[in-house]
Amino acid sequence: MSFFSFELDPALAADPVFDLHRHGKMAITPTVSLASRDDLSLAYTPGVARVCEAIAESPDLAADYTWTGNAVAVVTDGSAVLGLGNIGPAAAMPVMEGKAVLFKQFGGVDAVPVCLDTQDVDELVAIIKAMAPSFGGINLEDISAPRCFEIERRLDAALDIPVFHDDQHGTAVVVLAALRNAVTLLGRRLADLRIVLSGAGAAGVAITKVLLAAGAQGANMIVCDSRGILHGERTDLNPTKAELAALTNVSGRTGGIGSALIGADVLIGVSGGTIGEDALAGMAPGGIIFGLANPTPEVLPQIAHRYAAVVATGRSDFPNQINNVLAFPGIFRGALDARATTITEGMKVAAAEAIAEVVADDLRPDAIVPSPLDPRVAPAVAAAVARAAQRDGVARMMAGAVELAPQPL
Amino acid sequence: MSFFSFELDPALAADPVFDLHRHGKMAITPTVSLASRDDLSLAYTPGVARVCEAIAESPDLAADYTWTGNAVAVVTDGSAVLGLGNIGPAAAMPVMEGKAVLFKQFGGVDAVPVCLDTQDVDELVAIIKAMAPSFGGINLEDISAPRCFEIERRLDAALDIPVFHDDQHGTAVVVLAALRNAVTLLGRRLADLRIVLSGAGAAGVAITKVLLAAGAQGANMIVCDSRGILHGERTDLNPTKAELAALTNVSGRTGGIGSALIGADVLIGVSGGTIGEDALAGMAPGGIIFGLANPTPEVLPQIAHRYAAVVATGRSDFPNQINNVLAFPGIFRGALDARATTITEGMKVAAAEAIAEVVADDLRPDAIVPSPLDPRVAPAVAAAVARAAQRDGVARMMAGAVELAPQPL
Repeated sequence: MSFFSFELDPALAADPVFDLHRHGKMAITPTVSLASRDDLSLAYTPGVARVCEAIAESPDLAADYTWTGNAVAVVTDGSAVLGLGNIGPAAAMPVMEGKAVLFKQFGGVDAVPVCLDTQDVDELVAIIKAMAPSFGGINLEDISAPRCFEIERRLDAALDIPVFHDDQHGTAVVVLAALRNAVTLLGRRLADLRIVLSGAGAAGVAITKVLLAAGAQGANMIVCDSRGILHGERTDLNPTKAELAALTNVSGRTGGIGSALIGADVLIGVSGGTIGEDALAGMAPGGIIFGLANPTPEVLPQIAHRYAAVVATGRSDFPNQINNVLAFPGIFRGALDARATTITEGMKVAAAEAIAEVVADDLRPDAIVPSPLDPRVAPAVAAAVARAAQRDGVARMMAGAVELAPQPL
Repeated sequence: MSFFSFELDPALAADPVFDLHRHGKMAITPTVSLASRDDLSLAYTPGVARVCEAIAESPDLAADYTWTGNAVAVVTDGSAVLGLGNIGPAAAMPVMEGKAVLFKQFGGVDAVPVCLDTQDVDELVAIIKAMAPSFGGINLEDISAPRCFEIERRLDAALDIPVFHDDQHGTAVVVLAALRNAVTLLGRRLADLRIVLSGAGAAGVAITKVLLAAGAQGANMIVCDSRGILHGERTDLNPTKAELAALTNVSGRTGGIGSALIGADVLIGVSGGTIGEDALAGMAPGGIIFGLANPTPEVLPQIAHRYAAVVATGRSDFPNQINNVLAFPGIFRGALDARATTITEGMKVAAAEAIAEVVADDLRPDAIVPSPLDPRVAPAVAAAVARAAQRDGVARMMAGAVELAPQPL
C-alpha cells in the first residue's frame, strides 16, 4: 500500500496564501434542523415526498421550495483562468471558490463551483444544460474566447434561467460604469467620444456591445486585436471579430494601435500587452485611459496621466479599480429576485448606472468607481437589475415580492 | 409582461411541510473572510493564482487546498425518487437537499445536490465524469434499476474517487448490520441461515452481494422478483438478475414467494409489494423478517411477529428502523478521510460491523440497530471504513492524519 505525499514544497509552505486556502474557502450549512424524528419526518421521508409531488405538478414551485431559487453554478472548464491560461479544471477550483465566496458575501447568493473536465463546446453545452434544474442561474467563468461566445449563446437560448459569462459582461458593466462617471466628470457625452478598445477577446467583445447599447456610436469606435485594427478588409477574423469590425470603424481605418489612437478620447485596454507612449501621444488631450490587464496594466497610471485626465486599472493598489465584484453579485441577486429568464443588455446597462450612481455625488478623477468592498453597491445593482428585468419583459416575479433567504443554523 | 403565480394550492399551504421547505434546506457559507483589500488579495486575485499554479503542478494538492477534499455530489436523474417513481430532476431536489443536510449533520461532509436533466446512461456517465474534478466523491441517488448498475460500474472504473449508489449499498450495509445483530441475538450463524430476498431491484441486488461478502452462503439464498424465484431456467432476466440467479438458489427452486419461503429463516423485503400470511406460514419458526418498503412494509410488524422472533421495517414509528442515514454519512466521511479511490465490499462490511457494534452491548429484539439520530454511529463507521480502505489498498492517506475541516464564519 502506497500513500501519496500531499505535501507542499517547503518553499510554498512558507507562503501564507496556502494556509488560508487549506481545506478550501467554503462549506455547506443546513438551514433546517434534522435533530429529532419529527424533524426527519418533515424535512426528509416521508414528509419531503409531498414537496416533491407539488413540484412535479407545478415545476415553478421549485424556486420557492428548494434552494435553487437562490443558487448559481460558477462553471469553468479551466481553459482561461486569470492570467494563468489553460490550467485545467482541478487547478481552477481555488478561483471558482473565491468567486463563490464573493457571491455570498456581497449578493447573498449560494454559488456552487463546478469545474468541468472537458473543453469540447458541444459537451460543455450539453453538460451545463443537464445541470440546469439544480440552479437558478449559470455564471460562466474563465472559458477561453472564442469558445465562450458560442457556449453562452447556446445555453442562453436553451435555458430559462440567466446565463452570464462574467469575464465578458461583468467586466463590460464595470467599464461602462467607470466610463459614465469619467464622462460626467469631463463634461462630455458618451455619444461624442472617439473610443479605442485594445483587445478583442471575451472582455473586448462584451465591452464593445455594452457601450453600443449604452449610447456610444459605432462610427466613433475602433477595436484592435494583436494584429491591429479590426476592419472589413481583414481576412483573418473569426466570426465574432468580423461582427465587431462591421459594428465599428466606419471610416475603415487600418494599421496598428498607434493608428487607432490618433485623435482618440478614450483608450480601454483589455489585451494584456503594453501600449507605448509613441502611440498614446496621438490621443486627443484631456481624455480617458483604462488599462485593465492584470497584474501589469497596458499603461501604468504614472504614464497614462501624461496623456489623459482620468485613469483606471484593474489593480487594487492604484485608484479607480475596475473590478468585476462590483457587478456580478448584484446582477445575479437582482436576476434571481426577479426570477429573470435571461440577462438583457438593458439589465447590464442598468447595473452599470447603479454602480456609477453610488459615487456620483462625490465624483473625483481618482474616485470614478466605488471600492470593490463598498456594501452599498450590490443592493443598488440588484434593485436596478430587477427593475430592468421587469421593464424588458424577462421577469417572472415582481421585485419586492421576494423574502430573504433563511440563514444557516 | 406576465408573471407566473408561484402560489401553492391553498390545500397544500396548510401543510407545515411546505413552510419548512420554503427557500430550501441548505446554504453556502464562506469559511474565509473577504472583508478587506488584504483578504481579497490573498483569497482572490492575485494571491489565489499561486494556489492554482501549485495544483496545476501537483494535482493531488487539490484535496488539501480546495473544498473538494470534503465535498460530495449527491447526483440523481429523478428516475426513481423515494416511492414516487420517475418524477424528474426538478421534483427530486427536495430529497437531494435532505440528503445533503444529513451528510453534513452526521458526517461533516459538504454535499451538493445535482439533479440532471437526462436519463440516458451514456450521457449521465459522461456528465458525472466531467463534474468529478469538483468533488471528492459521488453519491448516486434515486436512479432506477437496472440503469443504476451500469452507471455506477462505469463511473467507478473511470474515476479515482469513491462512487456509491446509496439506494443499493447504503441499504445493504444497514440490512447487514441489522442481520448481524439479529443473528447474534438468536444464537445463530449467518452462514447457516436460509435467506429469502423479495425484490431484485437496486437494493435487492446490493443486499445479496454484501451478504455473500459477509459470509452468507449463496446455496442458502433465494432472490425473488415480481414474477417469482430467480433461477437459471428463466428467460426473462436482465443481466443483473441472471447474475443473481447464478449466485443463489443452487437447488434450482422455482415458483413464487410462498415456495421460496418454505423452510426459510430470514425474509428481507425490498419489493414494495405485500407478502401474505399464507406464504409466511412456511418459514422456519423463530426467524427474522425485515419488511423495508416505505411507507407500507411488505409485512406489518404485528403480523411479522406471528412468524418471526426479530422484526424490522424502514419506518420511524416502529422499532428497528433500517435507515440508510446510519451508513452513508460515515461511509463517505471515512472514504474522504482515507482519500479512498473507491468503496470496496470490505469497506461496506466494515461499515455494517461498526453500525452493529454501537448497540452490541445492549441487544434486544426491538433494538438491533441504533437510532438514525444516534451521534455515535457516523464516527464509528468512518473510522472502520478508513481502516478497511487502508487494508484493502485503496487509501491514499493514513487515517488520523486528517485535520478537521474549518467551520463557517
